Amino acid sequence: MSVDAITFRTRKWVRPEDLNANGTLFGGSLLRWIDEEATIYAILQLGNHQVVTKYMSEIEFVSSARQGDIIEMGLRATAFGRTSLTMRAEVRNMITHRSILTVDRVVFVGLGDDGRPTPHGYTEITFDRDRIPPQTA
Amino acid sequence: MSVDAITFRTRKWVRPEDLNANGTLFGGSLLRWIDEEATIYAILQLGNHQVVTKYMSEIEFVSSARQGDIIEMGLRATAFGRTSLTMRAEVRNMITHRSILTVDRVVFVGLGDDGRPTPHGYTEITFDRDRIPPQTA
Amino acid sequence: MSVDAITFRTRKWVRPEDLNANGTLFGGSLLRWIDEEATIYAILQLGNHQVVTKYMSEIEFVSSARQGDIIEMGLRATAFGRTSLTMRAEVRNMITHRSILTVDRVVFVGLGDDGRPTPHGYTEITFDRDRIPPQTA
Amino acid sequence: MSVDAITFRTRKWVRPEDLNANGTLFGGSLLRWIDEEATIYAILQLGNHQVVTKYMSEIEFVSSARQGDIIEMGLRATAFGRTSLTMRAEVRNMITHRSILTVDRVVFVGLGDDGRPTPHGYTEITFDRDRIPPQTA
Amino acid sequence: MSVDAITFRTRKWVRPEDLNANGTLFGGSLLRWIDEEATIYAILQLGNHQVVTKYMSEIEFVSSARQGDIIEMGLRATAFGRTSLTMRAEVRNMITHRSILTVDRVVFVGLGDDGRPTPHGYTEITFDRDRIPPQTA
Amino acid sequence: MSVDAITFRTRKWVRPEDLNANGTLFGGSLLRWIDEEATIYAILQLGNHQVVTKYMSEIEFVSSARQGDIIEMGLRATAFGRTSLTMRAEVRNMITHRSILTVDRVVFVGLGDDGRPTPHGYTEITFDRDRIPPQTA
Repeated sequence: MSVDAITFRTRKWVRPEDLNANGTLFGGSLLRWIDEEATIYAILQLGNHQVVTKYMSEIEFVSSARQGDIIEMGLRATAFGRTSLTMRAEVRNMITHRSILTVDRVVFVGLGDDGRPTPHGYTEITFDRDRIPPQTA
Repeated sequence: MSVDAITFRTRKWVRPEDLNANGTLFGGSLLRWIDEEATIYAILQLGNHQVVTKYMSEIEFVSSARQGDIIEMGLRATAFGRTSLTMRAEVRNMITHRSILTVDRVVFVGLGDDGRPTPHGYTEITFDRDRIPPQTA
Repeated sequence: MSVDAITFRTRKWVRPEDLNANGTLFGGSLLRWIDEEATIYAILQLGNHQVVTKYMSEIEFVSSARQGDIIEMGLRATAFGRTSLTMRAEVRNMITHRSILTVDRVVFVGLGDDGRPTPHGYTEITFDRDRIPPQTA
Repeated sequence: MSVDAITFRTRKWVRPEDLNANGTLFGGSLLRWIDEEATIYAILQLGNHQVVTKYMSEIEFVSSARQGDIIEMGLRATAFGRTSLTMRAEVRNMITHRSILTVDRVVFVGLGDDGRPTPHGYTEITFDRDRIPPQTA
Repeated sequence: MSVDAITFRTRKWVRPEDLNANGTLFGGSLLRWIDEEATIYAILQLGNHQVVTKYMSEIEFVSSARQGDIIEMGLRATAFGRTSLTMRAEVRNMITHRSILTVDRVVFVGLGDDGRPTPHGYTEITFDRDRIPPQTA
Repeated sequence: MSVDAITFRTRKWVRPEDLNANGTLFGGSLLRWIDEEATIYAILQLGNHQVVTKYMSEIEFVSSARQGDIIEMGLRATAFGRTSLTMRAEVRNMITHRSILTVDRVVFVGLGDDGRPTPHGYTEITFDRDRIPPQTA
């Protein structure tokens, strides 16, 4: 795998509830899915259940999807701050082979038990399962 | 009303299903709500049911909300292109009186029956109910 | 604004999941939306997060809505009891300009920490944001 | 079975998504469930898939339910109009053995293919499965 | 009633959100409904809110349903273990009069406050309402 | 990759709406997720949008998950019939490193435009993206 490659994992099947009046994928469903996937990715990179979205850079919706299409979401850690993680996100339509959107920087922050940003101590992306947080009590 | 003021309309009551593991408002729910509200606003400004999200400028999540908080969403048209509408969006927490996030530019495009961008002919924001589209067949 | 006017705020976009087999707006979705909006309104009039529905007067469904229609919900406080608030509710279809339903009296009660009705001390409607309850712990 | 008895069928298990901020059953979920159950009942009494809610008499919320409680919903046809069906509805909490609410009259109307009320030809309640409509095309 | 008869109670109305791309009932919705209904049934047979699914025997999907169809779900206790309950489940399509699926054995276990299987002391099915657990604190 | 290995792709974050009264993952949510993931997998192996669940072999729920846990779902084609595809499914808890359940055989069938099983012509699993069906009209 190229060191820059995004890994595509979670797939979604576009259903009636995900459509706008135009019969294409509703932007709101798409944004919700990305944030959910980024949350999971950030938990596994920072080894912390308490992660929150802090920032998303601009988003261009370049193509869409229709009912029955299959979407795949990809993420890749691009920078580790002291308490934050920056990721690049891409969503693709597997049926049309087209990119739906790319977000250059999605920033999450890990929080401590006091609800404030906490240093995570990581500086590199992991491809292993070596930062999985313990189960919450 | 100041000509620049955002009008806040739709309110949401933060429920358990809108929370992340940290007990605060899940970013994905928030993004879905904004897109839904912007869709309604764009339909009423462009007089067209067929509107789609094309672009969102960067988003900073400055504060959050907790279960039971009441959120209000505000929008204002800021520019009319030939086929597009640009809006400014703000989400506020009515309980804490704090801004949750602001998006400077949310761009929607109106589509014709062929699914392609269609000129809307408007250049100014309306505060009346004079562009409501007819009911779809 | 007329002292008797209902203020319309939250808007909903009728989606496939809100339809019955007849292709018109499902009464159950409508009733859920009204109760949610009345809850928010009651919280902001009584300054109390702990409000519950006690009574709804008769409801006549005079017109309906179809997929893609935009609905707006209006409420107005009409009477303050010792522990209760009575509101008038109306739902309108913005696309057809027709009323969907009116409920003359929707009664909510504010509860104390013991789960029992508690006096709220208010006798008049507020149009300001002067009764917003504090954030729950 | 007494000729006046309500038949309780569908049961619901109160989940986190059905609660208000007070930790009790949200009125909106309850109203949605009743309307859904009344729709099924009306389809089976009128032999028509195209049924819509026309009227509900006043509703008093006499007790509530908490997470994990089991609710049961009962309905009984009480009058057949030319195009309408009137039902009595009751919701009970199986755990506390208390009534949650009763609605004396829930009126549904059967529609024809033109979307207008259509005579159904029935004057009596059926306890058999002799009015099941054919599958829609 | 025959001692072997399954009792059909909860009914569902198949809605757009329950369909797959083929326009027929999505298997996932069906499995979710069965598990929910079995949970309610097990709570009422074991007199315990804390019940969890342990096992389902093989499932053959013999027919399906379409939008607007009405489904009914039936369950019957067939064996009581020391801490477990075995049920037979059937789902039928009321519109087409066909069975949708049958599961010979659905096994639930009752848990104690420590989260471990706890003896329930029952050996026979009840048709009364004599094992309803108390409301949780 | 071992030729027998299951590929784990879609991940889910266990949320309040996925819990039973015991505070552990609700079996019904789990079954829905597996069926959704198997549907996507079958579409991509058979090159056909019209796939339906026909059979699931017995399911043992060996461990569970709690709120905030991350689940991953794995599938692998194990046999190709004339019109069917058989898969093995596994769900794992990434936080506890334990298997949640395994289903030896999940059988899907591909349908033609007439809604009847149609031969797919495949005899081997693909790891490429060479059987993606065209977008539906």
